[in-house]
Amino acid sequence: MPKRAEIISIGSELVSGQALDTNSQWLSRELGSLGFPASYHTTIGDRMDDHIAAFRLAAERTDLVVVTGGLGPTQDDLTREALALTTGVPLHEDPASLEAIAAMFARRHRPMVERNRVQALVPEGADALFNRVGTAPGIWMRLGRATVACLPGIPSEMKVMFYEQVVPRLRQQGWVERVTIERKINLFGRGESDIEAEAFDLTVRGRVPEVGITAHDATISFRIVGEGATEAEAFLQTEPTADLIYQRFGDLVVGEGPTDVPEAVAARLLTTGATLAAAESCTGGLIAHLITAIAGVSPFFLGAVVSYSNEAKVELLGVPRELIDAHGAVSPEVAHAMAVGARDRFHADLAISATGVAGPGGGSVEKPVGRVFLGLATPFSVETRQLDLGPEQPRDIIQRRAAKIALNWVRLALLPWPDKPD
Amino acid sequence: MPKRAEIISIGSELVSGQALDTNSQWLSRELGSLGFPASYHTTIGDRMDDHIAAFRLAAERTDLVVVTGGLGPTQDDLTREALALTTGVPLHEDPASLEAIAAMFARRHRPMVERNRVQALVPEGADALFNRVGTAPGIWMRLGRATVACLPGIPSEMKVMFYEQVVPRLRQQGWVERVTIERKINLFGRGESDIEAEAFDLTVRGRVPEVGITAHDATISFRIVGEGATEAEAFLQTEPTADLIYQRFGDLVVGEGPTDVPEAVAARLLTTGATLAAAESCTGGLIAHLITAIAGVSPFFLGAVVSYSNEAKVELLGVPRELIDAHGAVSPEVAHAMAVGARDRFHADLAISATGVAGPGGGSVEKPVGRVFLGLATPFSVETRQLDLGPEQPRDIIQRRAAKIALNWVRLALLPWPDKPD
Repeated sequence: MPKRAEIISIGSELVSGQALDTNSQWLSRELGSLGFPASYHTTIGDRMDDHIAAFRLAAERTDLVVVTGGLGPTQDDLTREALALTTGVPLHEDPASLEAIAAMFARRHRPMVERNRVQALVPEGADALFNRVGTAPGIWMRLGRATVACLPGIPSEMKVMFYEQVVPRLRQQGWVERVTIERKINLFGRGESDIEAEAFDLTVRGRVPEVGITAHDATISFRIVGEGATEAEAFLQTEPTADLIYQRFGDLVVGEGPTDVPEAVAARLLTTGATLAAAESCTGGLIAHLITAIAGVSPFFLGAVVSYSNEAKVELLGVPRELIDAHGAVSPEVAHAMAVGARDRFHADLAISATGVAGPGGGSVEKPVGRVFLGLATPFSVETRQLDLGPEQPRDIIQRRAAKIALNWVRLALLPWPDKPD
Repeated sequence: MPKRAEIISIGSELVSGQALDTNSQWLSRELGSLGFPASYHTTIGDRMDDHIAAFRLAAERTDLVVVTGGLGPTQDDLTREALALTTGVPLHEDPASLEAIAAMFARRHRPMVERNRVQALVPEGADALFNRVGTAPGIWMRLGRATVACLPGIPSEMKVMFYEQVVPRLRQQGWVERVTIERKINLFGRGESDIEAEAFDLTVRGRVPEVGITAHDATISFRIVGEGATEAEAFLQTEPTADLIYQRFGDLVVGEGPTDVPEAVAARLLTTGATLAAAESCTGGLIAHLITAIAGVSPFFLGAVVSYSNEAKVELLGVPRELIDAHGAVSPEVAHAMAVGARDRFHADLAISATGVAGPGGGSVEKPVGRVFLGLATPFSVETRQLDLGPEQPRDIIQRRAAKIALNWVRLALLPWPDKPD
């Protein structure tokens, strides 16, 4: 009988629909893989009696209660007080937490207001959970037969604290025994239904290991769930299925886990030592942003010109003005010249360019919204490609698709490049 | 006293975290604007006793219970049966629903399997809700003192049925009289606890209209909930509070509703006719991306140079190489020269620059991770600013904060600019 978990999300912005709760989903997946299937998600606002009732009910019906939110310094943040009231103990100030909060403010060169002191309060008998990335410490305590972990509602803080504070304590408690791992193999360059049709044998129900397909931002992911006494054993169970996917889908496979197209490009730049530049019009800096979001890419990504105006295309990328006059800024000829200009001006091995109509305005019969030309200049060749990503798609989707297809082109171009010697 | 609502989402794919529940947020917003603030979201899987307990609890503590999911034809779909068990009545087949289901299958040229007949079952005394866009009819019934509406979990079906079946019945019941609207006023440039400390009089409980504070991506939002017999009256109720916020926080106010810093900059560029360019090092294209994500900005945003390499700073922005050698690429001197270079090369009225250490590597004692220098060149002056956003923050937060603070600086610089003549 696995231990059951409940996730309680606190925030009037959540019950009112002002904000979307994504923490519960994330926590459910993580808890599930640790062997605690979540049985309930409960979301409440900022009424004290709702807090107490929710904590009581959760502690009655589950073994592990993970609470997010309500740990801030404001009057609406009731989690600390509600837990104390539920268990009938007073709150006391945790000196280590107070010190950590003060240090956090000092590091940020901001004065600590008196109100932030309340964040150092924990119910008597509870442990404060250290928050390395924010001001609000978490809380770890028993409530009846259940264990309660309270984490901040800010997703980035919540995730760090879950891994660093909650998981180790669950292990210490001897609650994490059987290990489930999920391997995610990411593919890019073909539609979901196409890939699904080629993978019916893998996704059939009851298969061991289980395989699911999900799609995010045009990347299709196979998720393989392996189980075992140890992580290594669970991983081993996934191996034959992973091999099969790699063999069947070849170059469509971008990578595993968090490796999507930009990460794969960055990794390939690192191993080949090739350098990259970009010339962006309709993608408006998104190609550069996707690559520079990755740490350690500086030596290989030399930069980009976002040439939103025609003048910038001419002056900063050396695109001949006559070319723009003759073919228009959205044309294969200009995409070609932008790629060459970026390659030469940045002295890069490769340069990728994008020019198109991101919409919603600016489309015409010859150049509808969603028409994008990409250019790829390498030391050996210059090629262009035409994409039609509209016209019914919104601006952000057209920009994101164009940037991702452009980077995927760079990835494919780098595959045959030799690795640099160590 | 407004009638309170609870939203119950049913599906093991939701509690397990396999799928993200977006229905609850959507329903909360809709219910809120109709005058039924949602007080609870509850998510359960496919256990019968959880269904019954959740329905009972919801009917005790709220007036209106909206259930989504669990109306399909499979064995896991327990909503119908659970409602019958909760109220102690038998299920019976609704002839109109059966006919509608059969007709739907006929239209789709698919055989109707026997299992689909169960979708026509409703608890005795309940009404079936016609589903124009799918096979599963909904259910409308009383449970104790509460009204229960069950809708399919598929968002597109749920939304159509909410508007077509639920809202008219709420009106018929005389339950939709008052209108609630929510106004969101967004501030940027100061911390949440600072602003909270200056707004205690506004956020005090029981105030009319009610004011809440939320933070997203360093933007702090006041949410004012107004109520009235009409939308106009509800809006009017928010006016004095909104005025007060505008007066008290002055230039910190970025805009209302979806207007965050980039949108405010874009709007100001449009009304002044000023042109903007950017020179980005550590932000890697994010400033340009945030601006170009907004439609219609092309005439005013001329472009950017993402000068990740020192060569690019020298060659594309005209930063003197000696300046980089003397002060390092991360320095006020280089931020200054980058801004001037971008302003001049793009022939822009304003140019914003950013150079810094986004981390996680590359930090030093003199230039720790998170140290960023911004430069702002206008026709009248060039200024630089130093930011310290780390060192404990992850790379993406440092990049996002730096880009947003940079754009906010542009916003503030554009405030005194005269609007262009019509």
